[in-house]
Amino acid sequence: MSKSMQRRKFIKSVALTSAGMALLPTVKAGTVKDKLRIGVIGVGQRGELHLNLLLLRDDVEVPAICDIDQPMVDRAIALCKKLNKPVPQVYSKGEYDYRNLLARKDIDAVIIATPWEWHAPMAIDAMNAGKHVGCEVIMGITVEDHWEVVKTSEKTGMQYMMLENVCYRRDVMAILNMVRQGMFGELVHLEGGYQHDLRAAKFNNGKQPDGGGLLYGKEAYSRARWRTEHSIKRNGDLYPTHGIGPISKMINNQAGNRFVTLASFASKSRGLHEYVMQNGGAGLPVSKINFHLGDVVTTMIKTNNEETIILTHDTSLPRPYSIGFRVQGAKGLWMDINNSIYIDGKSPKAHAWEKADDYLQQFDHALYKKHGAEAAKSGRGHGGMDYFVQNGFIEAIKRGVRAPIDVYESASLSVIVPLSELSIERNGNTVEFPDFSNGKWMTRTDTFGYNEDY
Amino acid sequence: MSKSMQRRKFIKSVALTSAGMALLPTVKAGTVKDKLRIGVIGVGQRGELHLNLLLLRDDVEVPAICDIDQPMVDRAIALCKKLNKPVPQVYSKGEYDYRNLLARKDIDAVIIATPWEWHAPMAIDAMNAGKHVGCEVIMGITVEDHWEVVKTSEKTGMQYMMLENVCYRRDVMAILNMVRQGMFGELVHLEGGYQHDLRAAKFNNGKQPDGGGLLYGKEAYSRARWRTEHSIKRNGDLYPTHGIGPISKMINNQAGNRFVTLASFASKSRGLHEYVMQNGGAGLPVSKINFHLGDVVTTMIKTNNEETIILTHDTSLPRPYSIGFRVQGAKGLWMDINNSIYIDGKSPKAHAWEKADDYLQQFDHALYKKHGAEAAKSGRGHGGMDYFVQNGFIEAIKRGVRAPIDVYESASLSVIVPLSELSIERNGNTVEFPDFSNGKWMTRTDTFGYNEDY
Repeated sequence: MSKSMQRRKFIKSVALTSAGMALLPTVKAGTVKDKLRIGVIGVGQRGELHLNLLLLRDDVEVPAICDIDQPMVDRAIALCKKLNKPVPQVYSKGEYDYRNLLARKDIDAVIIATPWEWHAPMAIDAMNAGKHVGCEVIMGITVEDHWEVVKTSEKTGMQYMMLENVCYRRDVMAILNMVRQGMFGELVHLEGGYQHDLRAAKFNNGKQPDGGGLLYGKEAYSRARWRTEHSIKRNGDLYPTHGIGPISKMINNQAGNRFVTLASFASKSRGLHEYVMQNGGAGLPVSKINFHLGDVVTTMIKTNNEETIILTHDTSLPRPYSIGFRVQGAKGLWMDINNSIYIDGKSPKAHAWEKADDYLQQFDHALYKKHGAEAAKSGRGHGGMDYFVQNGFIEAIKRGVRAPIDVYESASLSVIVPLSELSIERNGNTVEFPDFSNGKWMTRTDTFGYNEDY
Repeated sequence: MSKSMQRRKFIKSVALTSAGMALLPTVKAGTVKDKLRIGVIGVGQRGELHLNLLLLRDDVEVPAICDIDQPMVDRAIALCKKLNKPVPQVYSKGEYDYRNLLARKDIDAVIIATPWEWHAPMAIDAMNAGKHVGCEVIMGITVEDHWEVVKTSEKTGMQYMMLENVCYRRDVMAILNMVRQGMFGELVHLEGGYQHDLRAAKFNNGKQPDGGGLLYGKEAYSRARWRTEHSIKRNGDLYPTHGIGPISKMINNQAGNRFVTLASFASKSRGLHEYVMQNGGAGLPVSKINFHLGDVVTTMIKTNNEETIILTHDTSLPRPYSIGFRVQGAKGLWMDINNSIYIDGKSPKAHAWEKADDYLQQFDHALYKKHGAEAAKSGRGHGGMDYFVQNGFIEAIKRGVRAPIDVYESASLSVIVPLSELSIERNGNTVEFPDFSNGKWMTRTDTFGYNEDY
């Protein structure tokens, strides 16, 4: 969109807002409920974790699950039996059997944990069928997918929440507390990313999730069945939300601020080919693959409030796991790689880091203070953040209030994927973010992390 | 330059190379000398350090110095006396008195340590006067400045070396050793920067280098006399070379590789204004300044060998000093912020960092093994790297061989300043690097760090 077109749209939306919010399409609040009936679409590694969390709750029933992968269905049923829960109806008759699950009248919401390319069509079908959607990260493949999810949510009044769990990481929420209390001053610059050696997850032996072979696609197990293909065909930041989600909360994205422009550079691609060669792939067809995905993809984002954000995507090289957070304001900064903080005038030594631990404890978020032990207990995953993100979705739907990561914010985070691909195609030139909220970002306020229960 | 123009130039330069290197303009090797007579232009904080290093050497005489700042001249003379060295002739009669120093027949080379805006004119005048030039970092202000320095060096046969000391930092040289021995595999992605809270250096009381007041410009002392103005008027990565210099060596820039494109984003500017306000500036004219320099400027670079490089410029916010190095290849990576390394198949625990110390010791560079103690001794600055960078210049001139950071490489590092300004002006869009070497980068080899003496 040209600058002048954007300006006209902006003026138009301001006019509408002044005339009254009711004129704008909004996501209707649901009915207040004590108990939800939730279907799970996709019960692979990630979906099984969600199912487990759902089954442990008193306020949720799971009457139906869906997956076309029989071993995953078997594991899900075994899990229900192990937890002495009723075995849900299974929908597994082909790729579109999920629509029969959606046709049920007794389901309030679905959790979607399928391959990325299915997220948008399933979410759209679900909302059109009158179900709220909690969807695993990545809203869709194309920019158009993102628009369609947003428009469907607006049209149906059904909520869509991208289940970005790192928003609820304990240290991240403590830092959010510090940001909101002004400890870092006005924010200026933030960094994050997804730096995770997924080489073994991209190739396995068809029997285990990680490694043991060089299979990918239909012959492989779990993620390698679908995710590897994205490393072969695409070049962009394919997985930005763990880094950008928490940053989004700190800079009040969609609550007075928004992402405006983006530029991405991709490095050469060496990691996956070298992994294949090191693991006996020489001579096999897999050794001939030209992986499009650059090993390290860097994305710069500029916000409307003029913060800069740097994101790194690095999943094909040998390396320790790191989100690589940096939160920097006019008074100080935090970095997670060295677990350190510096606050001007407060840190005991000028120009010298302090360990972050005392701050993280002092500013521990109310959610963790009240529910942290419960959240972190056995089977609840990733130190409690998986519990909290699902809980945030469920509590918002039950109470009929806006989800803590709502459809506009979710779209703005996930759309970085196709925008980064576009920028790389254009030799690193700048690409503009769509305004999915059509100007509503200016006057909305955020609800995330402002209470101690969800 | 358009892609097609570039291609034509490329083809033309390949043709010339094939016809014989002698047809290309080259920097002529100097005469072999046992002893050099070196003039120092600019004897402020940085120039005084150079003067001190020169006076400690047996193979150098300093017959002349130049500065228009009388207190700095007085300090320089006192230093000579303290070290029992002959007091040099002083050139201090106005901004162009340096040309009278250059007119002397008894000087082989000059070291320039003046404000950035004087580097290019002084270096050009010096080479035209038949002097080799060792110049403090930043070659010039505009892209044209850089071209003119390069062309003057080619025309006169005089060498130009940008004295980028971090290329000689001990840990950096150990990592360079590891890179050259293939420990990280083929390099993929590198990061560096200049993250240094210079707020107190940008404002002082006119009597001391750091702080104590809010003066800048003519009334201030040392750097604040000239450097602050660049933060007021310009927006870009104003000081990229400490980060990019070592990276340049690791990726063989100008020796088979080169920087091709760049894009820069600048954050909002808050740090300097807040510093002024916190230090009693409210109501003073200095509180009304609109500082153009974004507090954090990020630059992405793509090389001809498809590495990506990220640079950060951050000099106006409260923070600990950090160059923020990251050197990452297909087999592993080093980061300096957490002093850690990971090498695939070698690090004891998969997906987990090792402390870098043992590697840094094991791969300590021959230069440091042989001359480290000498270099680090009292008065030689920054753990020895200031000694080594100056030594590299002097030894190359004495031996009549190419300087370890020669004019083409120096230009390619420093030109990041005006290119980043241009990209920011263009809303973060990509800018192409000039090829100062006119194709010679393809066939040259690097000389830096391949021996144990310079």
